[in-house]
Amino acid sequence: MNYPSKLVEDAVNEMAKLPSIGKKTALRLILHLLKQNEVATESLADALLKLRRQICYCKQCHSIADQEICSVCKSHSREKELICVVEDTKDVLTIENTNQYRGLYHVLGGIISPMHGSGPDQLNIESLVRRVKEGNVKEVILALPSTMDGETTSFYLAKKLKESEVKVTSIARGIPLGSDLEYMDELTIGRSILRRTSYE
Amino acid sequence: MNYPSKLVEDAVNEMAKLPSIGKKTALRLILHLLKQNEVATESLADALLKLRRQICYCKQCHSIADQEICSVCKSHSREKELICVVEDTKDVLTIENTNQYRGLYHVLGGIISPMHGSGPDQLNIESLVRRVKEGNVKEVILALPSTMDGETTSFYLAKKLKESEVKVTSIARGIPLGSDLEYMDELTIGRSILRRTSYE
Repeated sequence: MNYPSKLVEDAVNEMAKLPSIGKKTALRLILHLLKQNEVATESLADALLKLRRQICYCKQCHSIADQEICSVCKSHSREKELICVVEDTKDVLTIENTNQYRGLYHVLGGIISPMHGSGPDQLNIESLVRRVKEGNVKEVILALPSTMDGETTSFYLAKKLKESEVKVTSIARGIPLGSDLEYMDELTIGRSILRRTSYE
Repeated sequence: MNYPSKLVEDAVNEMAKLPSIGKKTALRLILHLLKQNEVATESLADALLKLRRQICYCKQCHSIADQEICSVCKSHSREKELICVVEDTKDVLTIENTNQYRGLYHVLGGIISPMHGSGPDQLNIESLVRRVKEGNVKEVILALPSTMDGETTSFYLAKKLKESEVKVTSIARGIPLGSDLEYMDELTIGRSILRRTSYE
């Protein structure tokens, strides 16, 4: 595409680096900003820069935080003996929004993925093992993706945590509530039958 | 949604002001930026600010330009007696990409829309009338949307330009090339029969 100005081209190229934003969408967003007041662009740029420069991560669970220790880790009403291990902060937000979980979190910051060249050393695994050993942790819930890499990571963590004699569990896999069997993939259906639960 | 930090919340809110970006998408984009190097965010913010502050518009056709007069208006190989009237710069880019049009453009900067409170005075209509009067313009092609507002604007322009005795045309409406009649709306099919063209 030929852009009418180098400024537009640069902005489109930068915007299109964001995931799921192509050049056409980027151009649309940028022409929208041009139609708005200058303040709109300034406050967007400002919010992004501030975020990137001032962001902190919780020293205990590695989730995004306002202070040194995040509000979940600091809270007195959470069950400190329960840790849920997730891939990134997005998952913490997702689980928090359910209002169902009252334990703490541990953000790995990714998963083991030999294909993408990320090994266990790049993840927050050592600090998890330390938390489990030093704290009074009774159960670690693994809530990692059910992909090949996710399963590998779960397996690796389960092995690492074996020495600590902590209970390691995984979130339940099965048919989502409200879903029709008809539209489910065979792997999920097969697994939901194998791992059936007894009626209480 | 509860955000883990005010910084994240602000950035999500600013990002979600962009068209077709909801809060969930905004959060995903922002967590992506946090995973990247700081330079990525800085160059995005920088490109946006530079764009908004330094952007110029062509004095003749009001399209986005690098200099006072845009490259299309300045070019010696374009047909100066032909002006295509479009809603905004995006349409100029779209038509330019076809490589089919060799005339000049005129960007209105919107369309007449009583519902949104934008009247003819906010648009670059006076300068179009002046261009047609003063220049050696033979034909004005209206390429505005075929919505109610677009048609109103086209009608208004046609009336305004009547005094100048310039030929006013509209881009052809009909069945797009490669489209099946079956999937077309009735209005388009009806109009394509009414305005049928003779085989050359």
